[in-house]
Amino acid sequence: MNLLKHTLRHIEEVVLDSQGDIRKKFKAFAIPSGSLGRLEELATIYASIKGDLNCKLQYKKIFTMAGDHGVVEEGVSVFPQQVTEQMVQNFVAGGAAINVLARHIGAKVIVVDCGVASQLEAKQCLKIKKVGSGTRNMAEGPAMSREEAVRSIEAGIELIEEEMEEGLDIVGTGDMGIGNTTPSSAILAVLGKLDAEAATGCGTGLDEKMLQMKVGVIKKAIDVNRPNPNDPIDVLAKVGGYEIGGIAGLCLGAARYRMPVMLDGFISTAGALIANAIEPKVNKYMIASHVSAEKGHRMMLNLLNKIPLLDLNMRLGEGTGAALGIGIMEAAVKLLNEMATFHEAGVSDPYMTEGEPIVFE
Amino acid sequence: MNLLKHTLRHIEEVVLDSQGDIRKKFKAFAIPSGSLGRLEELATIYASIKGDLNCKLQYKKIFTMAGDHGVVEEGVSVFPQQVTEQMVQNFVAGGAAINVLARHIGAKVIVVDCGVASQLEAKQCLKIKKVGSGTRNMAEGPAMSREEAVRSIEAGIELIEEEMEEGLDIVGTGDMGIGNTTPSSAILAVLGKLDAEAATGCGTGLDEKMLQMKVGVIKKAIDVNRPNPNDPIDVLAKVGGYEIGGIAGLCLGAARYRMPVMLDGFISTAGALIANAIEPKVNKYMIASHVSAEKGHRMMLNLLNKIPLLDLNMRLGEGTGAALGIGIMEAAVKLLNEMATFHEAGVSDPYMTEGEPIVFE
Repeated sequence: MNLLKHTLRHIEEVVLDSQGDIRKKFKAFAIPSGSLGRLEELATIYASIKGDLNCKLQYKKIFTMAGDHGVVEEGVSVFPQQVTEQMVQNFVAGGAAINVLARHIGAKVIVVDCGVASQLEAKQCLKIKKVGSGTRNMAEGPAMSREEAVRSIEAGIELIEEEMEEGLDIVGTGDMGIGNTTPSSAILAVLGKLDAEAATGCGTGLDEKMLQMKVGVIKKAIDVNRPNPNDPIDVLAKVGGYEIGGIAGLCLGAARYRMPVMLDGFISTAGALIANAIEPKVNKYMIASHVSAEKGHRMMLNLLNKIPLLDLNMRLGEGTGAALGIGIMEAAVKLLNEMATFHEAGVSDPYMTEGEPIVFE
Repeated sequence: MNLLKHTLRHIEEVVLDSQGDIRKKFKAFAIPSGSLGRLEELATIYASIKGDLNCKLQYKKIFTMAGDHGVVEEGVSVFPQQVTEQMVQNFVAGGAAINVLARHIGAKVIVVDCGVASQLEAKQCLKIKKVGSGTRNMAEGPAMSREEAVRSIEAGIELIEEEMEEGLDIVGTGDMGIGNTTPSSAILAVLGKLDAEAATGCGTGLDEKMLQMKVGVIKKAIDVNRPNPNDPIDVLAKVGGYEIGGIAGLCLGAARYRMPVMLDGFISTAGALIANAIEPKVNKYMIASHVSAEKGHRMMLNLLNKIPLLDLNMRLGEGTGAALGIGIMEAAVKLLNEMATFHEAGVSDPYMTEGEPIVFE
């Protein structure tokens, strides 16, 4: 609990410098004012977080957080539980979608066992931060204890601190855990004060009948546990997951060390909701990479007041959306660093003295 | 005219292999079926065009087509005409947004003088395909002759043939030309059968009064010239531009050699509309990288039946949207080439025998 408390005490508010030096730098570039749209916004977010007009984006890491879920015994996924471990091995071998996309953008993938149901051995790209061997079935009682919930968040914070040593400029979140759209929907329902129906989607591919059953399981889990919507750690403990807590910890740890967090899809955003409820200052460190095809994701993004960069109908997780988002963020930061000004390029500037500051979301 | 005729004769229909071998390959990957969304769609488009399940995406080139417009004497832009040439020099020096974004995705920028009003000298990355020294003022008569229109299209086709020698897997379009949203809006109005008001936006930054004046200029140009909406070369000649014809030529040339074309924003899509009206088979070779903030762009994309990959409120042109789009396309092609199957990864596959084909736009 000390690490979490200490981290929360040190998270500073980000003040977006959207009308100051960063805006001035963009206005001097040889382009019509504001014509880079959200690329200027992204560069402004990045440079404001770093507090440096000449900041670089070099070290990119995507944390693929894995955990198992006792609730799978209710039949909420079409995949068997052992797929979590099998996919962790696939990540380690480099053959998964997140490996391909991370290589594409020059990012490193850190796979983390936050609570897989089987024993895994640490490897260079696989870290063991196991809080338990899978959560308990939340339809019958709390998924984990309050202490375990705090421990899962602290594991995420520890990862940031460990990876900073080698270099870390931007954090991408990702997840793997058979059944984990179920706790994510439950978190959305509780924190967003929504009916289970509204918050629940088809995950990896449920049909209508299985979806109705999943809604029933989520309703039951909320009924049985009565998570307190004003206590996000209680929500995480009762209807969450170890990897979801880990993702919340990544968000809090990144904010504490002034790093942006590129959120992936539905499960990552569930973790972000927990982090945001614990400490709202974390919000401005978060960027939504994409909106997933999973039904409740846009509602989650609305709760965080985020407009996603991409809408490509993806619903895979692992950090795949975050990887694409980091590629766009890096492009934006390079524009801030590498573009020529009207003066340098010898281009006539009709806006030499005017132009109004652009307004961000 | 021979080159254009010859090119049109050799454009083949693309048959999207969305239920055949490509779909089978994606279904075998260790992911929930369909979970890569539009990334699978992009890879399918790419491999279908190439006709090769193991196709690579290596040589990426963005053609930034520059031209001047006689209509600027009507006051349709806040920038003076010499900015076209100044920006061409900025592209050559490597300091513009398109240079930064092309470096980011590992693409080469080919700057092309399609009809800049001043004399430019060819350089390694600057090709001279000048049809005229700026078009004539379309508010007073045709922007160019029919022969010049054909010549501008053939210049685009020639570029494809020249650049293929070194290697060319995907074509990105781009533009530079002070005043060129005006002919682009006129093309949209004529081919889309829209009022000039509906087709006209603020370009690089007009205020409401200047916008009304620009609408009046476009109305007048259409009134004076009476372009025939069923004859796209007549439309290009009367209310188009040299770089817009060049972009149409890039689309036709790319299709003739079975290469995908990543369209940039408003001006590029005006060129694509011309190409699409000349030969509808070109349509399936085109991908819309983004929807621009320029008012008429979404209407253009609707006419082409394209859903953009990105919506980042950009309105710069140069090929900047195309560069980001090519980055995403390359990610998709890498997924097709590099992912492990359920079998290779030792992951349990609940869909071993089922799963329905995904449906594209």
